[in-house]
Amino acid sequence: MRYGPDNPEITYVEHAYPEHTFDTGEVALNYATTGSPDKPALLLIPGQSESWWGYEAAMGLLAEDFEVFAVDLRGQGRSTRTPGRYTLDNFGNDLVRFIGGRIGRPAFVSGLSSGGVISAWLSAYAPPGMITAAVYEDPPLFASELHPAYGQGIRQSVGPVFHAWNTYLGDQWSVGDWAGFLAAAPQVLPPWLGRFLGGDAPASTEPPQNIKEYDPEWGRAFWTGTAAASCDHRRMLAAVKVPVLLTHHFHREDEESGQLMGALSDLQARKAGELVRAAGQRFDHRAFPEMGHAMHSLDPKLYVDTVREWLGEVGRL
Amino acid sequence: MRYGPDNPEITYVEHAYPEHTFDTGEVALNYATTGSPDKPALLLIPGQSESWWGYEAAMGLLAEDFEVFAVDLRGQGRSTRTPGRYTLDNFGNDLVRFIGGRIGRPAFVSGLSSGGVISAWLSAYAPPGMITAAVYEDPPLFASELHPAYGQGIRQSVGPVFHAWNTYLGDQWSVGDWAGFLAAAPQVLPPWLGRFLGGDAPASTEPPQNIKEYDPEWGRAFWTGTAAASCDHRRMLAAVKVPVLLTHHFHREDEESGQLMGALSDLQARKAGELVRAAGQRFDHRAFPEMGHAMHSLDPKLYVDTVREWLGEVGRL
Repeated sequence: MRYGPDNPEITYVEHAYPEHTFDTGEVALNYATTGSPDKPALLLIPGQSESWWGYEAAMGLLAEDFEVFAVDLRGQGRSTRTPGRYTLDNFGNDLVRFIGGRIGRPAFVSGLSSGGVISAWLSAYAPPGMITAAVYEDPPLFASELHPAYGQGIRQSVGPVFHAWNTYLGDQWSVGDWAGFLAAAPQVLPPWLGRFLGGDAPASTEPPQNIKEYDPEWGRAFWTGTAAASCDHRRMLAAVKVPVLLTHHFHREDEESGQLMGALSDLQARKAGELVRAAGQRFDHRAFPEMGHAMHSLDPKLYVDTVREWLGEVGRL
Repeated sequence: MRYGPDNPEITYVEHAYPEHTFDTGEVALNYATTGSPDKPALLLIPGQSESWWGYEAAMGLLAEDFEVFAVDLRGQGRSTRTPGRYTLDNFGNDLVRFIGGRIGRPAFVSGLSSGGVISAWLSAYAPPGMITAAVYEDPPLFASELHPAYGQGIRQSVGPVFHAWNTYLGDQWSVGDWAGFLAAAPQVLPPWLGRFLGGDAPASTEPPQNIKEYDPEWGRAFWTGTAAASCDHRRMLAAVKVPVLLTHHFHREDEESGQLMGALSDLQARKAGELVRAAGQRFDHRAFPEMGHAMHSLDPKLYVDTVREWLGEVGRL
């Protein structure tokens, strides 16, 4: 099974919001939108192996206060696959074009995980005035780099999952051996990564919906470091130009291996804050020590309350 | 001597056109402009180790028919240095922002050498309708990649010069040993690269003006392949969306070593044409077998006549 935009009938399912396409010039960017254009614009950026509809429940709650846009990044969901071109700079500039060409006015941004790193990218590198404030939801700052300035890198955190996905599923699903992934997982993944085997349900012969919509080349780009090769996180954070909220979810260091269980360590979150503040910007850190990785889908109301409250606090809403 | 924007007084000289700054959000892009806004817009992109003023003579001739913009790319001339971030995608997206934010309407583009590759990038990856037609002036297509699809790569062409510049001058001129470069050149450069020793004049203890304005980290980015790592030239050329003129200057293969003397081989130019035509676009190849690399400064009138005539032919002027 070669999942992806070339085989939509076996890949995609219906959702609560209609989907639209924006042409960046290089990729067809799939997105959904709700809320009114007379409200502030809010762009939602999914995490790795997520699609826009991970925000489906949150979008309903956000629609009262925002015009909400949730996108599929290149290589996610229904958006174009771009072999060899999955980098933070390309993900970020796609969104610059989307905000400029579709939203058409300054926007708040909030992204989860790798999407949180792209939220950071926008807060640092977007054109002047395009971004008003940025939420980083449990972002693997430093921890998704191959050679981070601080703490564990991708190979000492979630990287082995990405590597295994890429190995058994292949770039653009060219291998497609989900059963092989499941069989290999106990050997190639650290025990604490068992939750990535396909959800809490018993291992299934059918990959989960979100994985079908994921280009496993993303995994290779992060495992080999090419995604962030020209975007050092320390340098990026030192260039942030807007207020930032970082939500920090469950994490701990594995005593035996020193590996990072979770998206970023306390050290990494602290360094992110130091860099953003040194850049002259407000930085708020909110800890949710019991929360799983994707608060916006695990507890949409808490996510929406957190985002809305903070945007009110920074005086921009 | 640490040349660059941090030490303008020892680095820069006066030019015939006033210089301006455009803020991309990440970098301050230096540029000069002439001609009237009621003429078609033409963006000129310098080559590696060149600055905008390499186009000074050509600009005077172009001003009659175009509103002309000549830029310093990041790491060139007076534009910002961005350590670790010299990639084709970043160079290209800077210009997307410049065209969108400063020029404000569709533009023709013409670039020399690495600037010609960036002209190709714009012709493939710019937002819809932003670029009208593209001139690639003696562009090292394939030949400036580390792992090209066709023919010689950067290490079998001009790469050793970039490597030597980077070694003896250092990222952001951190080493600054011009005398060391001159002393090492006979050993580390192939004999046919002797012309890069600093011009036709006897070796000087003072680097040429264009080299002072060059961030030698560019050289490392091309020598190590990071500049094009996420921008395969074959894939880029297969995505071209506008008519293209490629001017092909002096080149030959060294019989002894198989190395490429010049910007691109006949094979590489032919493959570029096949890819652009397969993408549904007009592709014209004009050979100037006696011409040195930078026609626009070596023979500004011939360059201007060539560009103007071709733009007339493709029916856009």
